[in-house]
This record gives sequence, C-alpha cells and structure tokens, in this order.
Amino acid sequence: MATVIDGKAVAQTIRSEIADEVRLLSQKYGKVPGLAVVIVGHRKDSQSYVGMKRKACAELGIKSFDVDLPEQISQAELIKQVHELNANTDVHGILVQLPLPKHINEEKVLSEISLEKDVDGFHPLNIGKLAMKGRDPLFLPCTPKAKCSSACLELLHRSGVTIKGKQAVVVGRSNIVGLPASLLLLKADATVTTVHSHTSQPENIIREADIVIAAAGQPKMIKGSWIKPGAAVIDVGTNAVDDPTRKSGYRLVGDVDFEEASKTAGYITPVPGGVGPMTVTMLLKNTLEGAKRYIEQNS
Amino acid sequence: MATVIDGKAVAQTIRSEIADEVRLLSQKYGKVPGLAVVIVGHRKDSQSYVGMKRKACAELGIKSFDVDLPEQISQAELIKQVHELNANTDVHGILVQLPLPKHINEEKVLSEISLEKDVDGFHPLNIGKLAMKGRDPLFLPCTPKAKCSSACLELLHRSGVTIKGKQAVVVGRSNIVGLPASLLLLKADATVTTVHSHTSQPENIIREADIVIAAAGQPKMIKGSWIKPGAAVIDVGTNAVDDPTRKSGYRLVGDVDFEEASKTAGYITPVPGGVGPMTVTMLLKNTLEGAKRYIEQNS
Repeated sequence: MATVIDGKAVAQTIRSEIADEVRLLSQKYGKVPGLAVVIVGHRKDSQSYVGMKRKACAELGIKSFDVDLPEQISQAELIKQVHELNANTDVHGILVQLPLPKHINEEKVLSEISLEKDVDGFHPLNIGKLAMKGRDPLFLPCTPKAKCSSACLELLHRSGVTIKGKQAVVVGRSNIVGLPASLLLLKADATVTTVHSHTSQPENIIREADIVIAAAGQPKMIKGSWIKPGAAVIDVGTNAVDDPTRKSGYRLVGDVDFEEASKTAGYITPVPGGVGPMTVTMLLKNTLEGAKRYIEQNS
Repeated sequence: MATVIDGKAVAQTIRSEIADEVRLLSQKYGKVPGLAVVIVGHRKDSQSYVGMKRKACAELGIKSFDVDLPEQISQAELIKQVHELNANTDVHGILVQLPLPKHINEEKVLSEISLEKDVDGFHPLNIGKLAMKGRDPLFLPCTPKAKCSSACLELLHRSGVTIKGKQAVVVGRSNIVGLPASLLLLKADATVTTVHSHTSQPENIIREADIVIAAAGQPKMIKGSWIKPGAAVIDVGTNAVDDPTRKSGYRLVGDVDFEEASKTAGYITPVPGGVGPMTVTMLLKNTLEGAKRYIEQNS
C-alpha cells in the first residue's frame, strides 16, 4: 500500500517556516511582506478563495492589501489600480482573482502586473525563464485554481522522492499546471514525457513512469493497473462528480482512481487533501520570496 | 532503406518562396525586409558565417545592414548600436553574431534586442510564448550555430511526416535546440519525451519513437538498433571527429549513426546536408515575417 502524502500537513510545515522567515525579516529590517489581493465583483466562490488567502496572510504576519472593486469597473480603471499596486513599495505580490467579468480581457490585465510582483507566475517571461536552462523564473507558477505545479515538486521533495534521473510522466499540458510541471521536472533532471488528449494509449507510457503528475481534468482516468509498482503519484485533478448520498449532491475526485492506484503506488496524494491545501501556501511562499528579494536589495 | 531528407533542396525551395514574398512586398508597399548583421572583431569563423548571411540576403532581395565593430568595443557602446538598430524602421531583424569578445556579457546584449526584431528567437519572452498554449512567439528560435529547432519541424512537414498524435523523442535539452524542439513538437500535438544526460537507458525510450530529434552533441551516440522501423530521424548534431584521410584532418558526423540508422528509419537527415543548410534560410524567413508584420501594420 502506498504512503498517502498529506498535503495539509506539508502545507502546515511550510507555513510555519514562512512565519519564521517573516519574523526574521521584520526583526532585521522592520518590514513585512505585503500581498495585494484584488477582487472584482461579488462571485461567491471568488470571495471565499480571497477570504482564505487574506486569512492565511494574517496568520503568517503577511500584510494583506484588500482591493475590492465593483463588477462594472472598466478595464482601464482596473489596470490603473494594478499600476498603483506595482508602484507601491509595501506590496511585494499582486494577485488578481480570476475569473474577471466578461467585459475585461484577463490576459491583458495579468500582463500589466509587474514581473517582480507576479506571484501567480503567469507572465510569459516567467514561463520562458522557467523553460530555459541557466535562467530562473522570478516565481514558479502557482495557480489561483487550487492547482499548482510547484506544489507538486514540493510534495515530492518533502516526501523524500528523488527526481533526478527518474522517468516522469505529466498527463496534461495546460499553461497553468501541466506545462510548468513538465518544465520543472525537466530542470530537476527527470526524463519527462508529456501526455495529452492526442496521445494514443497513454497507459503504456504511464506504466513506465517512476513519477506521475496527473493534471488532465478527467475524473479517475488513470487506472490502478496503469501505475508502476512503487511509483510516486501526484494528482492535481479536482473534478466534481455527482453523488446523491451527499447533501451537496457532488463530491470531488482526482484524475487518478485513488482506491485502485494506492494499492500499487509507492506514494500518492489524495483528492481532496493532497495538492489542494498546498496552493495558498505556495502563493504565500512566492510573496515571501518577492519581499525578501525587494527588501534585501533596498535596505 | 530510409528516404534521405535533402536539407539543401528544402532550403532552396523555401528560399524561392521567400524571394517571391519579398517581391510582392516590394511591389505592394515599396519596401523590402531589412536584416542587420552585427559582428564584433575578426574571428574567421564568425566572418564566414556573417558573409553567408549577407550573401543570402542579397540573393533574396533582403536589404542587409552591415555593422562591423572593433574587438575592443565596450559593452555600453555595443548596446547603443543595438538600440539604434531597434529604432531604425528599415531594420526588421537584428542578428548579433556570437561569440562576442570575453569582456562583453552576451546575454545582456541579446536581451537588449527589441522583441519584434529578435530573429534568432533567443529572448526569454519568446521562449515563454512558445511554451504556452494559445500564445505564439513572435519568432521561432533559430540559432546562429547551424542548429535550428524550427528547421526540424519544417523538414518533417515538407517531407510529409505527420506530427499530431505521434510519439516523439527529443535527445538533448539545450536552450537553443532541444528545449524549443520539445515545445514545438508538443504544440504540434505529438506526445513528447525529452531525454538527456541523466536519462538511464535512453535506447528503450528512443525505440518507441515515431519521430527522433537528435540534439545531444554526442557523435553517433544513437545507434541503428535504437531506431523504430519507419521512424523519422532528424539529426541536429554536427560533431567534428578526427579523420586523417581528409586534408582538414576531420569530418563532421551527426548524433546518429547514419549508416546503420538509414537501414531502419523511414526518413532521415544526413550530416552534413540535413538541418545545417536550413539554418540561414530560417533566419531569412524570420526576417521576412518580421518585415511583413511591421510593414503591413504601418502602411
């Protein structure tokens, strides 16, 4: 039976490390990291995500700058707000909660966030630097959608799984998870295969993998029989499936058939409770890194 | 026996297509593409490469701007020259011949080339856009070192090899060839594995591949017995090996054992005469694309 990787516990460990570093920064320089969280409109899910992020900031001593904007705001005004946050030296990270209202071009707004404050790591320049050897991106991509490629690697590292020289398969090639995960694994010296919807018989490739990152968005598509004995399986999928036994009418399942795969794998993350809890933590870690870089260079 | 892909012939076809487009552009707008070729110092090999590029420009009706600078030029002065070329609206592509003298930081100089004129495609933002779905880089990377990832795909296309849904293996992960080739193949819907020096038993992976891009810089490392029958093999390697029977004392060989592999492969590029002749042509194609973009937007 696989060791189940407890994302909540790992996230908690990292959070206490962040809190320690924030304390040191404050003692040494009299300054703390600042994260601006921008929300447009009143979507319930967005408000709940934003609330979680602000609460986590408070717990770790990170100053949160709350920017709540009306649904009707124009794109130009929103960009003006982003520019003000770019110029604010107490703000080290800027997060614009997605989705934005339909009249606003998300990509345009995100590209206005200054590179050094792009804690979600979505800027194409960050992805480019991620891809290229000898260059480091300022931030590793960490998505606002509870999916996080850097969380995958952090979970592997903290579980004691070696990446170098291993065969890794990433299932999915989205800009926000699959692609950055492939690039990160390649930088960490894994032999990486990226599998996607045009791949015929992905099971034959997955069966050879020491490390499987599942980010396809297909409930339970990866069967237990596809997993190599002892492999490390990180499941980024969070798919809602009907479940009439639940009050909500649904439950969340991953891209991996956990019940089957946990019999064969060496390590496996559950859904929920695996990658999910890591997301906000990686965002806070990125904010801390941005703050350290800025404060140490300007003190 | 494999069909040997004749890089010279393909390059010639593309060059005549470019010449046609240059003519059309000139008729319609009274303007032609301009390529600035910057060379610092007097290295014989650099002068020979630069000469080839300038000659090719002349043949196709592309105006070449020759900037020959002394070995002792300071980095600041060189960057000033780059800025002037950035500002020159008759220049649509800027190529700085590498290597630069040791007192100059190459990466710094290359990053000063304006993105729209970066015909070598080395800017990290171009690599980022290459990696991300739904974004297109302004230029596909095309290196000055006679190796060119976009040339690989062009050779496959022009030989009638389908990429979508195929298993592709890229051997090597350099910023200038391996990595962009992997990203291009992934965008073209191949299932891509990137193999490198930390991969154990690469032969087992290569044996499954319908498409092999060899860019490891290891003479004849890929044996004939590693090639799946019918596979398309693009050899980007150009390795000099001792050959006392030649006047020069050496000859060029690829990363693939051509003699063996050509018995099994469906398509194969020779070295020399495969990818090599495509390089300058892809540079000219990038210059044409840059010119079309600029001229059509500003007329």
